[in-house]
Amino acid sequence: MEQAVITYLTKNRDKHLTELKEFLAIPSISSLPEHKEDVQKAAKWVSNALQEIGMEKIEIYETKGHPVVYGEWLKAEGKPTVMIYGHYDVQPVDPVELWDSPPFEAEIRDEKIYARGASDDKGQVFMHLKALQAIFETTGTLPINVKFLIEGEEEIGSPNLPLFVKENKELLSSDVIVISDTSMMERGKPAICYGLRGLCGVQIDVKGPKSDLHSGLYGGMVQNPIHALVEIVKSFHNEKGQITVEGFYDKVAELTADEKAAYASLGITDQSFIDQLGVPEMFGEEGFTSLERNWVRPTLEVNGIYGGFQGEGIKTVLPAEAHAKITCRLVPDQDPDEIVELLQKHIKTYTPPGVTVNVSLFDKGPAFVTPFDHPAIQAAGRAYEKVYNVPTSYTRGGGSIPIVATFDQILEKPVVLMGFGLPDENFHAPNEHFNLENFDKGMETICYYWYELEQSL
Amino acid sequence: MEQAVITYLTKNRDKHLTELKEFLAIPSISSLPEHKEDVQKAAKWVSNALQEIGMEKIEIYETKGHPVVYGEWLKAEGKPTVMIYGHYDVQPVDPVELWDSPPFEAEIRDEKIYARGASDDKGQVFMHLKALQAIFETTGTLPINVKFLIEGEEEIGSPNLPLFVKENKELLSSDVIVISDTSMMERGKPAICYGLRGLCGVQIDVKGPKSDLHSGLYGGMVQNPIHALVEIVKSFHNEKGQITVEGFYDKVAELTADEKAAYASLGITDQSFIDQLGVPEMFGEEGFTSLERNWVRPTLEVNGIYGGFQGEGIKTVLPAEAHAKITCRLVPDQDPDEIVELLQKHIKTYTPPGVTVNVSLFDKGPAFVTPFDHPAIQAAGRAYEKVYNVPTSYTRGGGSIPIVATFDQILEKPVVLMGFGLPDENFHAPNEHFNLENFDKGMETICYYWYELEQSL
Repeated sequence: MEQAVITYLTKNRDKHLTELKEFLAIPSISSLPEHKEDVQKAAKWVSNALQEIGMEKIEIYETKGHPVVYGEWLKAEGKPTVMIYGHYDVQPVDPVELWDSPPFEAEIRDEKIYARGASDDKGQVFMHLKALQAIFETTGTLPINVKFLIEGEEEIGSPNLPLFVKENKELLSSDVIVISDTSMMERGKPAICYGLRGLCGVQIDVKGPKSDLHSGLYGGMVQNPIHALVEIVKSFHNEKGQITVEGFYDKVAELTADEKAAYASLGITDQSFIDQLGVPEMFGEEGFTSLERNWVRPTLEVNGIYGGFQGEGIKTVLPAEAHAKITCRLVPDQDPDEIVELLQKHIKTYTPPGVTVNVSLFDKGPAFVTPFDHPAIQAAGRAYEKVYNVPTSYTRGGGSIPIVATFDQILEKPVVLMGFGLPDENFHAPNEHFNLENFDKGMETICYYWYELEQSL
Repeated sequence: MEQAVITYLTKNRDKHLTELKEFLAIPSISSLPEHKEDVQKAAKWVSNALQEIGMEKIEIYETKGHPVVYGEWLKAEGKPTVMIYGHYDVQPVDPVELWDSPPFEAEIRDEKIYARGASDDKGQVFMHLKALQAIFETTGTLPINVKFLIEGEEEIGSPNLPLFVKENKELLSSDVIVISDTSMMERGKPAICYGLRGLCGVQIDVKGPKSDLHSGLYGGMVQNPIHALVEIVKSFHNEKGQITVEGFYDKVAELTADEKAAYASLGITDQSFIDQLGVPEMFGEEGFTSLERNWVRPTLEVNGIYGGFQGEGIKTVLPAEAHAKITCRLVPDQDPDEIVELLQKHIKTYTPPGVTVNVSLFDKGPAFVTPFDHPAIQAAGRAYEKVYNVPTSYTRGGGSIPIVATFDQILEKPVVLMGFGLPDENFHAPNEHFNLENFDKGMETICYYWYELEQSL
């Protein structure tokens, strides 16, 4: 690869950061109906950016939900074709009062850019755009063919993308799918994530009396919906951190001794997590290390619980209802549909008298693992090593990109997860940010990767 | 008593309702700091009303919190002195969207007046004002001496009134204390409540990681504060509806066979509660009827729980904290301080690993029982019977008016709870209202009571 490509990136750094800030300023929160127009605005922004870097056949495809943006460049005859997937939607920002700067006014402090979406995933999508532009404008061509598929519903579980992929198999055909939406191990330690957990979830709505009651006038004689909800939620775990839903672990693939050893050799200590997260101690399923609990073991996590009075002080109310939002992270070979059924059965079994319970389902996707010795993955490893000058780690991830499993199933091509985030960059939380060190090195790595790939596939 | 008093009330009904609406329009929510000025406005309103009906020595006494309003008329030489206690503060109104009309714009529908405070307690305070005015303006005098003590902190547990009472024992000396802040049994069935439960409570704040985490990236390896909170909250009860806090029931006075029989004879069925409250079935402590559970058994009730994401849809967050607000209703002879200590010890015992827990205390008061054969109570019973033409029931109540126990302890005079509310009038809940039938009959009853009292004490 020509050094001029790197020079181009260095020279245009300020311009790139200004453009990224513009992208980050759009509050494209896919889960909140009131931001529907913002999500569309972000789609338009991506489409314009594809235009600017020289892509062709650019189109904003409408779906039943938020649109999908497509663009391609297929003039590298005989060379491999890469599909780059990413998302331009972001998570909600609450509790917004915990942000040190407004979530949609990107601010650079201490060589980090702070904004919702800075790392997950606008920042990383942006890097792919600018890396290709650097090669294009420096060399006049690209070493690979490329297709962009940037969606707007990743943060709500990509409900409409599977259908779009099914209906556009030809359009999306490629040799490899590359996604930058994950993290490196830690600063200066590149990693390629070859497996992700799946996701499924339910909302539990407990109803008791027809309206809120005075806890003095009625307390003691009717079931409190909060008590009932707590009884159900408590029943999901035992004191060993194990999930007690019958059949939940039945299809979980056993961890091999080799994998166990490989994860241990990464040298990540519990103390480093404790320092980073500010918890008094680590806690999880008995018999597994923290990394194993996060990468290869399933979880059942309450993401939200609410009912009754939340203001300052006291209100002696016996509320009419109480709610919990619950998601499970799944591992091979758990089936999301099956797990949701087990959850529903469990909830029914553990519902105490005096209330009615409604269960609604969130979107779901299975776990995903790809062989890490695939040439496309090994080429990515070499690209990282060229820029970071240390060996690349091959890891798995605790998160879920449900669409990865869909790509695997429908397009039947290897998926390479090439992440440039860092684990402490507050994805989904207040003060999300992205380290500019990896913004710079990441774009270089991507450029090297396309040349490595040209030689490997 | 002269018939002219009743005629006066009938003639002035519209004027009275207009004035009551004015009182109800003041959003005097004592628990919310942003309503501090409204609470003061309500105190001023009461003070003006006392002036208007002919009271003397009217004063708004400042406290460390919201003010106390006092007024007296002591010119009935040789006659008994009554202290009328009530409160001009109200509960919060959330969830405000469940109100059919704005909570601070009183509206009369179907002979009921809807507003926050309509029954608890502005409506009932107002009735005392207007009943006395009716006698005064009709006869030119009163059959009793009277002192008004109307406070602004009842809904937050009267934190400053005990000190005020202690420091003003002479000012507040009387032969009997009358409070209208409770309910009749049901429509057309007057009741005098001779016992109330006490109250104490705690807020539990659970802290886990220093900020919200992505439930994929960290789920499984750190304790989820919601899970920890749920574990603590669940541990308070067993499946029999009993409270499992060690020592909680140790000092609870046993229910006598006589009382048990008296409550059963009231003929209140579970089905009537089920219909009224809209619950699928009644639920409570094993071995007791619904009335017993509410009147003579203590409770531990979660009034609010919150943590994590509450918006529409899904947010895969592992929250940094979770909270619960808990109150206990206490019965004779439980000691509120002792119960709070037991709660704290219990919470400590049941806190799982991986989180820190902070417990803060709410205000508290003991339970209260007064002998129902006291002449002041029996006189009230006769007054009711004159107006309602049915026998008066002698009941206990599940709620708490912590100041009642304080009066009992400091002033050492009988307390008569003469309530005109109905159990389904949504105290503390959306669509609080007051039946105008009892507004009319209640004022008549109060007038009769003062003449009965003149003869009895």
